Amino acid sequence: MSEANGDALWLAILQETEQAVRDEPLLASFLHMTVLRHGTLEDVLAFHLSSKLASPVMDARALLELFREALAADPQISRAMRADISACYERDPACDRYSTPLLYFKGFHALQSQRITHWLWQQDRKTLAYFLQNRISEVMSADIHPAARIGHGVMLDHGTGVVVGETAVIGNNVSILHGVTLGGSGKERGDRHPKIGDGVMLGTGASVLGNIRVGDCAKVGAGSVVLDDVPAHTTVAGVPAKVVAQLCPGTPALDMDQRV
Amino acid sequence: MSEANGDALWLAILQETEQAVRDEPLLASFLHMTVLRHGTLEDVLAFHLSSKLASPVMDARALLELFREALAADPQISRAMRADISACYERDPACDRYSTPLLYFKGFHALQSQRITHWLWQQDRKTLAYFLQNRISEVMSADIHPAARIGHGVMLDHGTGVVVGETAVIGNNVSILHGVTLGGSGKERGDRHPKIGDGVMLGTGASVLGNIRVGDCAKVGAGSVVLDDVPAHTTVAGVPAKVVAQLCPGTPALDMDQRV
Amino acid sequence: MSEANGDALWLAILQETEQAVRDEPLLASFLHMTVLRHGTLEDVLAFHLSSKLASPVMDARALLELFREALAADPQISRAMRADISACYERDPACDRYSTPLLYFKGFHALQSQRITHWLWQQDRKTLAYFLQNRISEVMSADIHPAARIGHGVMLDHGTGVVVGETAVIGNNVSILHGVTLGGSGKERGDRHPKIGDGVMLGTGASVLGNIRVGDCAKVGAGSVVLDDVPAHTTVAGVPAKVVAQLCPGTPALDMDQRV
Amino acid sequence: MSEANGDALWLAILQETEQAVRDEPLLASFLHMTVLRHGTLEDVLAFHLSSKLASPVMDARALLELFREALAADPQISRAMRADISACYERDPACDRYSTPLLYFKGFHALQSQRITHWLWQQDRKTLAYFLQNRISEVMSADIHPAARIGHGVMLDHGTGVVVGETAVIGNNVSILHGVTLGGSGKERGDRHPKIGDGVMLGTGASVLGNIRVGDCAKVGAGSVVLDDVPAHTTVAGVPAKVVAQLCPGTPALDMDQRV
Amino acid sequence: MSEANGDALWLAILQETEQAVRDEPLLASFLHMTVLRHGTLEDVLAFHLSSKLASPVMDARALLELFREALAADPQISRAMRADISACYERDPACDRYSTPLLYFKGFHALQSQRITHWLWQQDRKTLAYFLQNRISEVMSADIHPAARIGHGVMLDHGTGVVVGETAVIGNNVSILHGVTLGGSGKERGDRHPKIGDGVMLGTGASVLGNIRVGDCAKVGAGSVVLDDVPAHTTVAGVPAKVVAQLCPGTPALDMDQRV
Amino acid sequence: MSEANGDALWLAILQETEQAVRDEPLLASFLHMTVLRHGTLEDVLAFHLSSKLASPVMDARALLELFREALAADPQISRAMRADISACYERDPACDRYSTPLLYFKGFHALQSQRITHWLWQQDRKTLAYFLQNRISEVMSADIHPAARIGHGVMLDHGTGVVVGETAVIGNNVSILHGVTLGGSGKERGDRHPKIGDGVMLGTGASVLGNIRVGDCAKVGAGSVVLDDVPAHTTVAGVPAKVVAQLCPGTPALDMDQRV
Repeated sequence: MSEANGDALWLAILQETEQAVRDEPLLASFLHMTVLRHGTLEDVLAFHLSSKLASPVMDARALLELFREALAADPQISRAMRADISACYERDPACDRYSTPLLYFKGFHALQSQRITHWLWQQDRKTLAYFLQNRISEVMSADIHPAARIGHGVMLDHGTGVVVGETAVIGNNVSILHGVTLGGSGKERGDRHPKIGDGVMLGTGASVLGNIRVGDCAKVGAGSVVLDDVPAHTTVAGVPAKVVAQLCPGTPALDMDQRV
Repeated sequence: MSEANGDALWLAILQETEQAVRDEPLLASFLHMTVLRHGTLEDVLAFHLSSKLASPVMDARALLELFREALAADPQISRAMRADISACYERDPACDRYSTPLLYFKGFHALQSQRITHWLWQQDRKTLAYFLQNRISEVMSADIHPAARIGHGVMLDHGTGVVVGETAVIGNNVSILHGVTLGGSGKERGDRHPKIGDGVMLGTGASVLGNIRVGDCAKVGAGSVVLDDVPAHTTVAGVPAKVVAQLCPGTPALDMDQRV
Repeated sequence: MSEANGDALWLAILQETEQAVRDEPLLASFLHMTVLRHGTLEDVLAFHLSSKLASPVMDARALLELFREALAADPQISRAMRADISACYERDPACDRYSTPLLYFKGFHALQSQRITHWLWQQDRKTLAYFLQNRISEVMSADIHPAARIGHGVMLDHGTGVVVGETAVIGNNVSILHGVTLGGSGKERGDRHPKIGDGVMLGTGASVLGNIRVGDCAKVGAGSVVLDDVPAHTTVAGVPAKVVAQLCPGTPALDMDQRV
Repeated sequence: MSEANGDALWLAILQETEQAVRDEPLLASFLHMTVLRHGTLEDVLAFHLSSKLASPVMDARALLELFREALAADPQISRAMRADISACYERDPACDRYSTPLLYFKGFHALQSQRITHWLWQQDRKTLAYFLQNRISEVMSADIHPAARIGHGVMLDHGTGVVVGETAVIGNNVSILHGVTLGGSGKERGDRHPKIGDGVMLGTGASVLGNIRVGDCAKVGAGSVVLDDVPAHTTVAGVPAKVVAQLCPGTPALDMDQRV
Repeated sequence: MSEANGDALWLAILQETEQAVRDEPLLASFLHMTVLRHGTLEDVLAFHLSSKLASPVMDARALLELFREALAADPQISRAMRADISACYERDPACDRYSTPLLYFKGFHALQSQRITHWLWQQDRKTLAYFLQNRISEVMSADIHPAARIGHGVMLDHGTGVVVGETAVIGNNVSILHGVTLGGSGKERGDRHPKIGDGVMLGTGASVLGNIRVGDCAKVGAGSVVLDDVPAHTTVAGVPAKVVAQLCPGTPALDMDQRV
Repeated sequence: MSEANGDALWLAILQETEQAVRDEPLLASFLHMTVLRHGTLEDVLAFHLSSKLASPVMDARALLELFREALAADPQISRAMRADISACYERDPACDRYSTPLLYFKGFHALQSQRITHWLWQQDRKTLAYFLQNRISEVMSADIHPAARIGHGVMLDHGTGVVVGETAVIGNNVSILHGVTLGGSGKERGDRHPKIGDGVMLGTGASVLGNIRVGDCAKVGAGSVVLDDVPAHTTVAGVPAKVVAQLCPGTPALDMDQRV
């Protein structure tokens, strides 16, 4: 699944974990079971998520097999996950190890879990996808519909309170703060959720509602309610959101400045 | 508890579940234990909620007995639950089975759990009600005071971040998105939380604060902060919320259009 | 750890708990294991938090030892916890027992847990602090960085969705409603989060962003997005927040009136 | 199930348990959950056995319902259980409370569990009976076929290593020490296991093999291998067992003297 | 691992299990999780044993992987297991389904578990083998050294109390009743345990001690203590055991008549 | 508790465990949690036994505290435990590490657990002692009365099926094979169980019944039933046991030759 030679990310995570075992005896048991005894980053992810999502009514062994099956069947999940780790490492100043998002970031866990429910949805295993969506929502407080399409290099920061609807689409290299909603526009079926371009930053608690488009490298201020299309390289803010800056250079998702 | 003949909802859920067992082997164990071996919808609800709310310090068996006792003692809980299932089925375009909210919607679980804590509160078993409120808040991220009075046909969508205060009242056929707060107006005791009329829709992240009234079929926009009474059939939005539409026909809770 | 004579808070909690055991047989088991068999309030806190934060990959026994070690090593945690209990008792009209926040308030649990991760951070046990931050975020839906400095007499009400960044500072006697964010201003390291003065009230869902100062006894309205310094004794509200009242007498955190 | 007035055994057990809660704080949680919150001795038995026999693949709630169903359907189980408690109390000098065998004697637990598997067998629920026999054998180390017929007032002392075959019959007021086998005589089906009369004592590690009869008030010495009928009021011992005393007065099961 | 076509045993077990699901709703959950969702008999065995041997300090997922690895690496385990199932089916008159020993016979579980620890021993993973031996001994009450060599078609009936030493060897088609010991002859290392020939039956509680040989098709009576070689086709009994029959035709292990 | 300098046994166990972590990744998690993160042998024992004896109705944390309290209060337990480890190491040829009995020998675990229940008994905490005796009997299949007095340097080999009565006394340096019973002589209270001298070996399945004395360095053959005093340095065997050798030199418990 991972490339045998040159999997620098996996090697870095192994080294960080070995150091952590030496530094913190209380974590040695967890880190051996979850990281060190495995051979690939994908195995670690599958094991870790199955630990978190198992419950008295869904066996961890069954989940582990399922997650491995998904990761083996769809290499895009693995590639996206690696890009998501890098995204956290590069954009979150409080994150100075690659292993930190992998092991300890709830938003990262919710995002990777959705990548697996999305694969289930594509396989038409919708009931199982709903079962897991519910469990992800309980454990990680992020409720992302399995059908939502999400790009690579996404940072779902904290994740608490995030809701993403069935027909939402999220581009590459997007940063989504906690409390963000990509919501629908009523009870009619069909395409009814936002489309988020590449490089967008969605600030804390922002709600984007309806089948509207947020253009590439746009920025949505914290607490905003977006009801209309947002052009690329534009900053919007307010309730309802209005344009507060246009033709902004740079990529808000990478800058991570929520201030508008 | 359920009517022996003509419990169409229960029969529909049984049929959906039998189909799901055939379609998804990984869920067969869960669905047999939680649904198929039971004889009534009420038994399924009691079992399912006790699975979710049990913990190493509160035995699932004790909770199951308690939940059954509540459902048997107060048939209103059962009636409300059935109306709530129908509400999800009718209003949520992503919900095309009756069993989906019952088994997989966190907001639905939080709401039914509160119906049980409310019964405990009425029986003056307040400490147990608080214990469960805490556990509901941990598992389902919705913190609804046991004393709050909630009508039938309510859709608590997603549920994450919802907070409802002690003296709040919610009418029938209300739709409440995630992140909604029905909060108080200070540290004085007494009636200090909102009264929500029938057919109201409260948008994502809306805060309604103080002993104010939101009239029947009113609509509160996403992210709004409501500090004053809202007349019936009126739409308010903004921080603080202002009237943006009056004499609106229809029932916002049924239309589920958060856009204002 | 506690003063042998005159620990009135502990005695009150013991009495309340003994009464609860008599009133509610279903809680007797929990209350004996968690409260009555212990000798100090600190032991109860350590046991209770270890029950909540343990998982199949982190043994409750190991956590209990760790939490006791922290409470013994840093008496400030204990003093702050006692002030926090009093804060809930005095400010929350729905809280009429000292044992209620201790045992049943999720925000209180998240806050005390952070006090322990903060001690770990000071001991340079950062990986363990991250591990626990993740677990607190899963169980209590509050994501507070271990490095954040938080005063005494703080009420973290409900706690759901709260996010507090690495370089944030919170004064004494502050009240923080659910959904509040003390967020950063970009991906640069260094001091980048808000400083909250004494006696401040931060309303539901408020976002305070960047290295700005909210002065003593200021009040931030629900749903506000604060991007600039707030003078002491000032009320701000809106997206973005603007001053709506100046030279306000009193202490908003104690009054707990979210209405502006 | 129990007689409302005059259930002296239940009242005695309640009183003993209340005293134990006062004396031993470490057991208060267990005793409240398992004994004090229940209303009948049968409920305590059902709860206690379901605690012991539950496992990650068989939910305690499902077992509790099953055991209650059995106790309600067949009052003989309840009567036998009460006689078995009295048997332990009267015959075991180390047992000076009625609650001791109920709560702490493994042989007693195995015997009552078999009474329930026997009821399942009679209902033709043989697979479930085998499932439970396996679990009883794992937890209590006694492997008693569900079809075996066992009388009242039986003391199964310690229980470890006891094996009782499909067509075995055990009379009333029998005492069976640990390691006793009531085994078969080959691979042919049909009646092939021993018949034990009333008042018999079977000493530690004794093997009684084949469809033979051990007469009323007979005594089988420890370590004996019995291959032939044993007349009533006769003591046998040795490998193979031979008569060592005839026309013995008294009831060996009550005297509990293993020495021959 | 299993032959794709013609795996009659696996098909028979699947059919029996599907019938059991229809007959016994209470077992449907267990049987789906443990049997029906798997594709081979080996997967069922690995899953079932990992359920039984997992504990709070050894994750079921890790055990499942290990057991699968062993079954894949050494096809002899699988062949022996299938012969052991047939042995129970043919020799135990109370066993009329192939699934019964697989799912519910403790002795069978202990024997298959030892086949796995034996493979570990051969791989020089001795500490892990000891860890599992301990766990097998706790759960199944049979303490079989990982180094012991055991043939095919062995029925370990009940299993309770069985102890088999490091240098013991057990042939094919042997029947071993509960309580049997194959013990050593002192504290000197080296070959010091019994060698049991093919077709031997060791009766309940028999002890065979020292590096002696029990010849093919010999029979050891219940409760016997064997200190000397036993010739083939010979029956011994008593403490110490003496020859009671010579030149016996037939295979005692298949006849299962413990009477001598 | 342990001597800071010169605790050679603890250091040896630490070294063995560090080697095992390197050799066997699957055990690293268990060994870190159970051994390496602790500072004394006593802490390891308390943690390990609390892992084994905890259950859904008795929290591992409460047991850990209790076991530590016992080990701190009565240094004899610690001394006896160390002598018991040495006994296994010296007498069991299959045991070539000090950590093996500590971590993996069921009989050793049962014996150390009884040393703790004995301390409870001496403190007049008899109900808790019974609770634990029951749990030890379930997990380790050895049923040893808390009142029994047991010396140092005892090897309880395998432990399965061992039963020791209330007034039994066991000397120093005794070896007790599995299935051994030290039983009573009837239902009269008072001193009614055997007294075993120093250096005695009790063979597999031996029953010693009544208030009789087995003299120093005596040997009881496997499967024997002892009803009369056994002189020192004498070997007895048979059912009932008879003297088979007198004036035997040496210490049978150290030689571990069960053959007579």
